[in-house]
Amino acid sequence: MTQATPTGASAAAASPTAASTTRDRLLDAAAGLFYREGVGIGVEALCREAGVSKRSMYQLFGSKDEVLAASLERIAPAHQAFLVPAADDRPARARILHVFERLEELAARPDFRGCPFVSVTAELKAPDHPASLVARRCKDTLTAFFAEEAERAGADDPALLARQLTVTFDGSGVRAVMQGRGLDGLAVTTARTLLDAAGVDDA
Amino acid sequence: MTQATPTGASAAAASPTAASTTRDRLLDAAAGLFYREGVGIGVEALCREAGVSKRSMYQLFGSKDEVLAASLERIAPAHQAFLVPAADDRPARARILHVFERLEELAARPDFRGCPFVSVTAELKAPDHPASLVARRCKDTLTAFFAEEAERAGADDPALLARQLTVTFDGSGVRAVMQGRGLDGLAVTTARTLLDAAGVDDA
Repeated sequence: MTQATPTGASAAAASPTAASTTRDRLLDAAAGLFYREGVGIGVEALCREAGVSKRSMYQLFGSKDEVLAASLERIAPAHQAFLVPAADDRPARARILHVFERLEELAARPDFRGCPFVSVTAELKAPDHPASLVARRCKDTLTAFFAEEAERAGADDPALLARQLTVTFDGSGVRAVMQGRGLDGLAVTTARTLLDAAGVDDA
Repeated sequence: MTQATPTGASAAAASPTAASTTRDRLLDAAAGLFYREGVGIGVEALCREAGVSKRSMYQLFGSKDEVLAASLERIAPAHQAFLVPAADDRPARARILHVFERLEELAARPDFRGCPFVSVTAELKAPDHPASLVARRCKDTLTAFFAEEAERAGADDPALLARQLTVTFDGSGVRAVMQGRGLDGLAVTTARTLLDAAGVDDA
């Protein structure tokens, strides 16, 4: 799993200009640091980790809050690519369970600190913070994937099932963090139970 | 709901000595402040809010970390009393659903910032922190309640059902925080689905 971690720490900077390279380096460092240490990290520590001057940071972003929001935007595509399968011809059930299998993989890692979007929201305690809004949008993308697959599979109530699966995803992540250990199949098993109840089978 | 809030802010100080009164005042203020603002709150702000001198704080506790852990210990009984029903003659299913109905009540409040035990753990990012250990123990108490009731109801796999219900409880709390709104029955509905699947009916 070198191409996509929940913190986006290994996302490659692909931009041609010096400014965008600085921006990417700052955001990658920020994503990793916020994930490991929390959103309380100061600008000083952030710039040190990124190897970027404060002056450069403030030329690119108005505030640390903006850096935090942009760092979540930056990790979102890799995060989603790791969790959500690309188009394939598997049944909806298998494609949904794929997400939970990936979560189990992440949750078993010693450096797992939960879903980065959940963590940032829990830490900020401010639903209208720009980073909370990014986090919500990223979470809604996952719910939309579940809803689309549930619809395709003819689930009894696709929107409800999608919300239930999101609750299971986030509750499982929380459990792994609180117990300080992997999930041992709990996320996949619970998702299966909900899929069964909604009439989403292997067909 | 004046007798028990998730932050324990209204827990009455009932101790007879001045030292324990100071301790309780400090812990009540700490619980409320940490819940609203996060664990990054400094000792200065904490003592100001509690109306306690730093000297008094350090006479009672070795560090802010100890205050944090003790504040969770202090709110735990009221928190549990609010969520978990006292002994009664209702079927296990109704007693389990009671917890989710209470969660829906909490999640609809504008000052809801999620389960305080989940929040602290997510913020600390340190599974061995004394407060993370208290939080885990409090969460395990809820899981144990679910397991006991599931066992009594003859669930197929009481321990698994209890973990699934805990995941649903925590995932629902996270969802309310991330969406910035109440759950509209999602927690209760999901718990019902899991109870049905495990064969826990109204009998």
